[in-house]
Amino acid sequence: MSHNSFGHLFRFTTWGESHGPAIGAVVDGCPPGIALSEADIQPWLDKRRPGTSRFTTQRQEPDEVRILSGVFEGRTTGTPISLMIENVDQRSKDYSEVAKAYRPGHADYTYDAKYGFRDYRGGGRSSARETASRVAAGAVARLVISEVNIIAYLVELGGDKIDPANIDMNQIGKNPFFCPDAQAAARWEGLMDAARKAGSSLGAVIECVAEGVPAGWGAPLYAKLDAELASAMMSINAVKAVEIGDGFAAARLRGEENADAMRPPRPESGADGPEFLANHAGGIAGGISTGQPVVVRVAFKPTSSILTPVETIDRDGNATEIVTKGRHDPCVAIRGAPVVEAMMALVLADQKLRHRGQCG
Amino acid sequence: MSHNSFGHLFRFTTWGESHGPAIGAVVDGCPPGIALSEADIQPWLDKRRPGTSRFTTQRQEPDEVRILSGVFEGRTTGTPISLMIENVDQRSKDYSEVAKAYRPGHADYTYDAKYGFRDYRGGGRSSARETASRVAAGAVARLVISEVNIIAYLVELGGDKIDPANIDMNQIGKNPFFCPDAQAAARWEGLMDAARKAGSSLGAVIECVAEGVPAGWGAPLYAKLDAELASAMMSINAVKAVEIGDGFAAARLRGEENADAMRPPRPESGADGPEFLANHAGGIAGGISTGQPVVVRVAFKPTSSILTPVETIDRDGNATEIVTKGRHDPCVAIRGAPVVEAMMALVLADQKLRHRGQCG
Amino acid sequence: MSHNSFGHLFRFTTWGESHGPAIGAVVDGCPPGIALSEADIQPWLDKRRPGTSRFTTQRQEPDEVRILSGVFEGRTTGTPISLMIENVDQRSKDYSEVAKAYRPGHADYTYDAKYGFRDYRGGGRSSARETASRVAAGAVARLVISEVNIIAYLVELGGDKIDPANIDMNQIGKNPFFCPDAQAAARWEGLMDAARKAGSSLGAVIECVAEGVPAGWGAPLYAKLDAELASAMMSINAVKAVEIGDGFAAARLRGEENADAMRPPRPESGADGPEFLANHAGGIAGGISTGQPVVVRVAFKPTSSILTPVETIDRDGNATEIVTKGRHDPCVAIRGAPVVEAMMALVLADQKLRHRGQCG
Amino acid sequence: MSHNSFGHLFRFTTWGESHGPAIGAVVDGCPPGIALSEADIQPWLDKRRPGTSRFTTQRQEPDEVRILSGVFEGRTTGTPISLMIENVDQRSKDYSEVAKAYRPGHADYTYDAKYGFRDYRGGGRSSARETASRVAAGAVARLVISEVNIIAYLVELGGDKIDPANIDMNQIGKNPFFCPDAQAAARWEGLMDAARKAGSSLGAVIECVAEGVPAGWGAPLYAKLDAELASAMMSINAVKAVEIGDGFAAARLRGEENADAMRPPRPESGADGPEFLANHAGGIAGGISTGQPVVVRVAFKPTSSILTPVETIDRDGNATEIVTKGRHDPCVAIRGAPVVEAMMALVLADQKLRHRGQCG
Repeated sequence: MSHNSFGHLFRFTTWGESHGPAIGAVVDGCPPGIALSEADIQPWLDKRRPGTSRFTTQRQEPDEVRILSGVFEGRTTGTPISLMIENVDQRSKDYSEVAKAYRPGHADYTYDAKYGFRDYRGGGRSSARETASRVAAGAVARLVISEVNIIAYLVELGGDKIDPANIDMNQIGKNPFFCPDAQAAARWEGLMDAARKAGSSLGAVIECVAEGVPAGWGAPLYAKLDAELASAMMSINAVKAVEIGDGFAAARLRGEENADAMRPPRPESGADGPEFLANHAGGIAGGISTGQPVVVRVAFKPTSSILTPVETIDRDGNATEIVTKGRHDPCVAIRGAPVVEAMMALVLADQKLRHRGQCG
Repeated sequence: MSHNSFGHLFRFTTWGESHGPAIGAVVDGCPPGIALSEADIQPWLDKRRPGTSRFTTQRQEPDEVRILSGVFEGRTTGTPISLMIENVDQRSKDYSEVAKAYRPGHADYTYDAKYGFRDYRGGGRSSARETASRVAAGAVARLVISEVNIIAYLVELGGDKIDPANIDMNQIGKNPFFCPDAQAAARWEGLMDAARKAGSSLGAVIECVAEGVPAGWGAPLYAKLDAELASAMMSINAVKAVEIGDGFAAARLRGEENADAMRPPRPESGADGPEFLANHAGGIAGGISTGQPVVVRVAFKPTSSILTPVETIDRDGNATEIVTKGRHDPCVAIRGAPVVEAMMALVLADQKLRHRGQCG
Repeated sequence: MSHNSFGHLFRFTTWGESHGPAIGAVVDGCPPGIALSEADIQPWLDKRRPGTSRFTTQRQEPDEVRILSGVFEGRTTGTPISLMIENVDQRSKDYSEVAKAYRPGHADYTYDAKYGFRDYRGGGRSSARETASRVAAGAVARLVISEVNIIAYLVELGGDKIDPANIDMNQIGKNPFFCPDAQAAARWEGLMDAARKAGSSLGAVIECVAEGVPAGWGAPLYAKLDAELASAMMSINAVKAVEIGDGFAAARLRGEENADAMRPPRPESGADGPEFLANHAGGIAGGISTGQPVVVRVAFKPTSSILTPVETIDRDGNATEIVTKGRHDPCVAIRGAPVVEAMMALVLADQKLRHRGQCG
Repeated sequence: MSHNSFGHLFRFTTWGESHGPAIGAVVDGCPPGIALSEADIQPWLDKRRPGTSRFTTQRQEPDEVRILSGVFEGRTTGTPISLMIENVDQRSKDYSEVAKAYRPGHADYTYDAKYGFRDYRGGGRSSARETASRVAAGAVARLVISEVNIIAYLVELGGDKIDPANIDMNQIGKNPFFCPDAQAAARWEGLMDAARKAGSSLGAVIECVAEGVPAGWGAPLYAKLDAELASAMMSINAVKAVEIGDGFAAARLRGEENADAMRPPRPESGADGPEFLANHAGGIAGGISTGQPVVVRVAFKPTSSILTPVETIDRDGNATEIVTKGRHDPCVAIRGAPVVEAMMALVLADQKLRHRGQCG
């Protein structure tokens, strides 16, 4: 019921606004005895940190995480883990115009419609800043599913797709776009520079793959692994679509094309489960993992805060125009890659524990 | 936590297998005093009922619903509403082959991997038959949100899209495909007949629109209206992707193209909220409804049960081939339209009550 | 959030009214592979069944349970188990008077105050008949915690306590009161006959002991084993108080008296955990089981439906008097013993699975 | 599911250990627009604060609360309210002995049994220090139910009961025991001094009354107002029993004695609901509030940390004896009164919002 929590057995709750004193997450239900310190969390936050290239917001936030509870002598105790990140670089003066009028495409109008008023400083609770809390919680989740390896990367930016033939996972960390195709990354620099200069913004598509998920995680029917992944990804600010495996493309296949045929495992593979001849299903059938890689694709819309003027209304209902100055990501999806990874880890950790609870 | 429940304040739980004696739903948290009888539910079940055209499974199920509790003197009492539908036409003998080997693309293997064994008769719990319970529960939800009008229709079948210029909502009930484009419906007959004859199956895309949703339903962050819709839709069997508003296409727009500009309402409209000049957002911003129509698109994969032989393994891990005889929908998405509508209603009813709870 | 569900990983939902066509429970999250048939449930329902002595309501209900889902080839499949009990002996004519006026002490007035109207036939949803659903669900829970032995018995009736020196567990099944003290049982026959003749009713106190609960079930802080037991017991109709271990008496002990001193286990005991020299704590410390027997005591008020006239108001707010004819338990607590046992089993089964989920 | 959260629509999550850097609570689901600052919370924390008399622990904690999120321009925004209290006076050296052996009656052994190890400093998560977070969250809840007035007081200490004839609510704030009977308070000083000198501890019983609760809050069956109060109170450290209204005494009444007869309201009262001639039910019937004062009684066991040596075992299972030096409340119930009030407020706030959600 809680609007700001996610998960069941492994559950986290986030709090905090863009321009408040701090943000944070409380992680509940973590198994005891896991080695955990700030050093296990900080690297993931650093990947998502703003200001690391000219293609992200220039807000300077060290995003240093502190563990306030739930760890004793370097190990988790099984009690709630409170994670806090102080906000350092809040320049509220930037937001005077947003206080008066609604940015189209942003949550300004809907927060006012729901709550009667809103914290307009930097988007308040609807700011992408909240995703730092997810990344911190996700770092804990990764330790719970140490058998799984998760990686997310951009496969499309501003409508320009990567070439699957060029994919090289080693490239992901070598460009500012989490892009596995070096040529696409080079093109994207140009796209991004042009958009920034035009006072515009771009959307993108992120793909996330989790390898090492054993067969059997997930559950029918309203706790399907794919249903929870869809909810997790769609809860990220700016996300508008989610695909599992082939997704929309599966709707264009025939039954025999879409079937992931199975064979007995090759003895040399050392695998328990079958060898699958394809993975159209994205590693999930009937809501339960098949043992193949879990594959999710997520669409991010272009940032709503732009320098191009847009027709809108003010809080009193009068017609006006708005230009959002401040400091914003011209493509919020770029820093979305570590967030998508975190949500994948958080869903899997919860499903792992629940599977163990029901099925032993 | 419950795997077979959905919703919070307005919550339903489904039970039952394809070939058990009955299936059903328990609807909890319904407001009191709403007029309700079987006659309010049956028409929606009839829309989803199998065997109404040659394009759906030939299983003959009257799908007659009984209200076993929660209604007194024709009105809801606020206590749980138990809905039951008896299974009439179970021919278990059809499924002997499925008992031994796994149908690729189906939940057979994953249920076995998770639970150690499974009810193989007609897919057991993973059968699309479960969706009748959702439709029944959804009929109750519709009464809770009587201000909202919901309609779902196929926009693509077997890769063949409708022409937006041809859309006529009155056509939806006049063809066996819930298709608003009469020309497309005619083409789809041919596609479906060809697929059936080839022992194959097709996928499809369903669009669902909810009009009349006031601004303010939904909530940050893990209970976003779009996050709950994504979860609801992805929990339907065979669904592999969900889009809100422009969805993936939004990732290809620039910020100023994607912004739904606002104006003061025209006096003659009688509207409270702003006039929006577009609805790229699909009626949801920051997880909260804007007052515009809520728009969702859902991709269904082709049915996994096909007559074309596919390579697979049996329960003992040996290589084999499988052909699924039985009676199956050659395109399960067709009967998915009433199910998608039901899930939309169920999400909205819950969000309406929760909004009233928190915000009065 | 759901008002008619209980539990988390092992969760049940009940539905049905006293005078509707049926009542039932949906049990969700049950581990797969457990042998289960109606024969595992019926004996517990028979213990609670009305009409077995002159000291319970004369309503004749066979309380035959049917399993409608979740079991295949005699074993649980891990999917929801739907249990249904038909109502056979509903004589609605008995309740004409209750329709007009409120029985003091009963839920008549509060249901009307909350919902605006109510199903007055036999108390509708507030009837003790609902407890049959709990007993059915509890029978499934017992199979999940087969290492635990649960027994409940009356320790006080109408203010007359049993003598601890006379306790003989073999007596419990030999009298109509679930009383372990044969002498008390004999006295209680007289008390009950006198109360019935006077058109009155009596209260009672039930004690329930669960042996075999290993150390480690339960959890801080809002899921303490004792907090969940308190909630479970207080959710039973007519219950007004719950004690764990010494309960109120513990508030009168000094710290050193209340401490359950520990010693290393005696080698011959074969025990893992310590030997405790006392069990003031009732088997729970810090919300977690100690390995000692879990002990709960529950107070039931006297039945509110009595033949003695009581001052009240009618639905229009006018002064009147009410006499409840119908068929009622002169001491509803008697049939409460199997219900208390069921709730103990349901709490423990859920905690067992959650412990396994978090701690492996 | 979350072990460290409570409530549904109005929900809070606590975190933190006795000797960590801080403790806190995240309050989620609070209605927007409520005036809130630290000054609304601090007075309640001050009532619970240790070290204010010689009858409580001498640990010096200012218990200054900070609001880190969810409030903008002095009003709640409807988003999560993060409350933090720094721990100032942690003297970990006091706890060296507790690290090695288990204090009987305390959670030391059970935490180890469950989690494999524990934060032994000051009891870690099982410390009564956690209750400060509840009091802070409860202060927010009070603002949500401003129509309700809540007061808790001790009615018994060390087995010595107050005299109902002497009750004067104005006395509660004038003695260190939250005692409404000045004569009892005087006697209790002697009892407490004697217990402290003897290195012992005492238990107590707290009564809590909520006036102004309208008829209709609460819900059948597993969300009964009394079931949630029982769970809330039993979740407080050291609580072993809960009564609603007459509680155990109701089990000794006859039906006609226990019935709270009703009359039409006196015109001069201005009341909507009936006039009740008694309140044996403690303001709750069928799990729903009657409009009368809600009355709960809670038993606290004597503090387990005492100077009197008790037989126990160490972590290796060897026999030993333990004396708990440190700084401890000789009667933890004294500071329990503000905690009981907070839990009452938290349950009522959640039920109010849920009632509004379902019933409008």
